[in-house]
Amino acid sequence: MKLTQEFEEIFQKIKSSKPLIHHITSYVTANDSANAVLALGGSPVMADEEQEVEEMVSLASALVLNIGTLNHQKMKAFLRAGKKANALGIPVVLDPVGLGSTRLRQDFVADFLTKVQPSVIRGNMSEMVSLSGSPALMKGVDSTLSSEEGGDEIAKTLAERLQCTIAITGKVDVVSNGSVTYHIDNGHPHLSKITGTGCVSSSFIGLCCASGGPPIYSALLGLSIMGISGEIAESRLDPQKGQGLGSFKVHLFDAFSRFSLKDYQERGKIYEIQSSRQL
Amino acid sequence: MKLTQEFEEIFQKIKSSKPLIHHITSYVTANDSANAVLALGGSPVMADEEQEVEEMVSLASALVLNIGTLNHQKMKAFLRAGKKANALGIPVVLDPVGLGSTRLRQDFVADFLTKVQPSVIRGNMSEMVSLSGSPALMKGVDSTLSSEEGGDEIAKTLAERLQCTIAITGKVDVVSNGSVTYHIDNGHPHLSKITGTGCVSSSFIGLCCASGGPPIYSALLGLSIMGISGEIAESRLDPQKGQGLGSFKVHLFDAFSRFSLKDYQERGKIYEIQSSRQL
Amino acid sequence: MKLTQEFEEIFQKIKSSKPLIHHITSYVTANDSANAVLALGGSPVMADEEQEVEEMVSLASALVLNIGTLNHQKMKAFLRAGKKANALGIPVVLDPVGLGSTRLRQDFVADFLTKVQPSVIRGNMSEMVSLSGSPALMKGVDSTLSSEEGGDEIAKTLAERLQCTIAITGKVDVVSNGSVTYHIDNGHPHLSKITGTGCVSSSFIGLCCASGGPPIYSALLGLSIMGISGEIAESRLDPQKGQGLGSFKVHLFDAFSRFSLKDYQERGKIYEIQSSRQL
Repeated sequence: MKLTQEFEEIFQKIKSSKPLIHHITSYVTANDSANAVLALGGSPVMADEEQEVEEMVSLASALVLNIGTLNHQKMKAFLRAGKKANALGIPVVLDPVGLGSTRLRQDFVADFLTKVQPSVIRGNMSEMVSLSGSPALMKGVDSTLSSEEGGDEIAKTLAERLQCTIAITGKVDVVSNGSVTYHIDNGHPHLSKITGTGCVSSSFIGLCCASGGPPIYSALLGLSIMGISGEIAESRLDPQKGQGLGSFKVHLFDAFSRFSLKDYQERGKIYEIQSSRQL
Repeated sequence: MKLTQEFEEIFQKIKSSKPLIHHITSYVTANDSANAVLALGGSPVMADEEQEVEEMVSLASALVLNIGTLNHQKMKAFLRAGKKANALGIPVVLDPVGLGSTRLRQDFVADFLTKVQPSVIRGNMSEMVSLSGSPALMKGVDSTLSSEEGGDEIAKTLAERLQCTIAITGKVDVVSNGSVTYHIDNGHPHLSKITGTGCVSSSFIGLCCASGGPPIYSALLGLSIMGISGEIAESRLDPQKGQGLGSFKVHLFDAFSRFSLKDYQERGKIYEIQSSRQL
Repeated sequence: MKLTQEFEEIFQKIKSSKPLIHHITSYVTANDSANAVLALGGSPVMADEEQEVEEMVSLASALVLNIGTLNHQKMKAFLRAGKKANALGIPVVLDPVGLGSTRLRQDFVADFLTKVQPSVIRGNMSEMVSLSGSPALMKGVDSTLSSEEGGDEIAKTLAERLQCTIAITGKVDVVSNGSVTYHIDNGHPHLSKITGTGCVSSSFIGLCCASGGPPIYSALLGLSIMGISGEIAESRLDPQKGQGLGSFKVHLFDAFSRFSLKDYQERGKIYEIQSSRQL
């Protein structure tokens, strides 16, 4: 009930203000993020030239930083835009794509977090384990790593250490701000079979943060929109007509553009994990 | 009648020559521009390395320059490609994306226009007011700025000053070459809810210019293709089946690839504004 | 029969290992390549920062290098990633997009091939004639150049000289490793009317190589998936409903994600050309 009210407020603010969401992001998924933000009523802008990002983020209501297709030019832009956003009180969402795969990404994110305070960090379990940097936590990490295995502990610990909301996406999403931890049990495996659903989830969280919503509710709503839209998209797939992942992506963007609080009320599955009661 | 003949000539030249359209453009919408140009019968190429753009544009029949995701490397490429195109008599279309949002874009476009002569500049009303740079014109500029408010005057003034065709897109599009000014009353609000329709409009204008069509007719036809295709796409949307903006984009590209002069004859709404008579 | 067994093995290895395919590729088609690799069961990663590509390719099972939107930063990344892949025995697929259009591309590929040994090079006939660099072969080269005209000879000669498999795509695809040459007679003209089908074909070849399949079979299977999926996509187009190239692309990705050996058995048309017998 409480969540529904929070979400309604966020939706209304997005509708009334059409917030500008500044992205510095991967060229692989930039088109998807732009269309997704537009579909939900926001206004996306992608700009990554170091010399203009401070000015651009000053016009924006949220900054989404995604380290896919990272390079040195973008690294400078991330830092300048992130510091400016912090100075102006504009929320920053960090998506540490591929963290753990290369030294460059590991070092950059470590350095970035000493200089910029994000409101939310969203990633998959492998990225979050890499972020935690704890050898103890790394035990048993492999390609089957899922958010169920120690995700609650990692989310809570990282949230406390980094003073922000942590969102770990997977079969079950885990969201924590250190004080309270939630599970989201929406979504469909097809979401992991098209590119960009992680990046778009981060864009949605940025969009919700832009409305002034508290980071924890913004993360919960952003991920719920993705998960529930994935379920709706799958329900519309017609395999008899030969539909597969191409159609699934179209249905998914259809669902984004028609998403309303009613979808959440009908399908939302968010649980506060201490009590395991559905909200 | 006259316009229909002009448009028919342009179409026939595109079909017979499959012109190469060199783009230096944003990574957000490059895929959309490429598919749109292909759908209409052109041949797109995207190349932005300073060292090869002169050679590439020499092979092309038009050059489309889009400053979305601008950076210093691309700025050099814009200038070299633009100068070469001018030297060879190859038409240049400029899309000053986000003009007015940052000093970098403002300064770059101002400098560019002292060195390169475009055939057509296409943008939205905010970008065109920024281009005009007139404080008087800037009064009342805000997010609700639309092409109806002073668009005719700005288009005509800019066309005279910059010696080119100006195309301002919005609810009603305004196209002027300084001597004559037109309105286009096609399109659908959904076109502003997916990314890339502005960029693609510029690509279409480039494609029409490539056919050797006069800039004013190329701009009118390019924007008419977008507006009319948007109407067709919307007419095919089936909300009962849950269709939204994902399907709209698919329908839009369907309409591009099936576009013919017949669509223009059935739906085209171009008015010469002095007389307000439909052509 | 032999081919079917080879293909079945490749499919099974992809399913069981979900190989990581490292791309350094064009921003125009990166999203398409990522979705296509995911649809077939692989795991794509796009990374082009020189400083991290050696590490990234070390994690991968194949490296796909595509010189669309080439720039100097990527040129360094190609060389470092390619050399590392060679050192580790990871197969390299080269897609020399636009070869012949600029001196930069010509010089870069010539230099690259002295330093990196690809397993497969895939391109269209113009690119392959440019690669051959033979004035004699260049006679009669123009926009109507098709793989039927001298393609067998060029493929065989290049394969011998460059010690790799050559795949020339066109109305009929030609694949040769120098010892044996095949034709593939699948596909549909629509495939050349959307962007990225060439790039995606190279990604598919990379995915098949990643499974450990011999380059010649990997090339045959990769191109067969594209050609057959194009036929299936076209068969699902409903022009009565206004469907065109937008829907064709959706159907194509549907077909990718549903592709199985059964599709090949029903539709595959691969001929060993010495004997002209269907395999």
